[in-house]
Amino acid sequence: MNSIENQLPYYAVIFTSTRTEGDNGYSAMAERMMELAQKQEGFISVDSAREDIGITVSYWKDLESIKRWKENSEHRIAQQKGKSEWYNEYSVRIAKVEKEYNF
Amino acid sequence: MNSIENQLPYYAVIFTSTRTEGDNGYSAMAERMMELAQKQEGFISVDSAREDIGITVSYWKDLESIKRWKENSEHRIAQQKGKSEWYNEYSVRIAKVEKEYNF
Repeated sequence: MNSIENQLPYYAVIFTSTRTEGDNGYSAMAERMMELAQKQEGFISVDSAREDIGITVSYWKDLESIKRWKENSEHRIAQQKGKSEWYNEYSVRIAKVEKEYNF
Repeated sequence: MNSIENQLPYYAVIFTSTRTEGDNGYSAMAERMMELAQKQEGFISVDSAREDIGITVSYWKDLESIKRWKENSEHRIAQQKGKSEWYNEYSVRIAKVEKEYNF
């Protein structure tokens, strides 16, 4: 869990999804994308949990960093396989974090 | 999962937490708070998942609705018990949703 006070404002990508049946290479890709995201310029942190639905929230310094990550070639392949194989549905929301409280 | 296209911008409350051991009334409270939140003016939707960490993202029409929910008397009691009993740590982030894509 990432509860370091970050410099405001920063950005959150809220990725919510429901999975198709079976792994079909999903776990390895998810691990690889986590690893790769963390190496991107502007990446701050990421939190993830899955029960009935999966929620992954990644935090970024600015919108440009998010755009670069979206266009990363390896990530684009994962996005394509996400649509064709891994997800029944998903939502991506880009949000500007304006306040943060930690306990 | 809530993937209805909502009118932009709207607001997200990203609540990330790690739990203490044992239930101690937590599950009943969590269910009650979900039910109660949905009755508040300005509430749009909520998504929640827990593995190592829990992530609950609730969506609201505006900051005033979030403020009213934060100050709701029953919710305040839950917030107090959260600090004293249920959570090891948590973060609350308030973010303005500027873009949304659904698949």
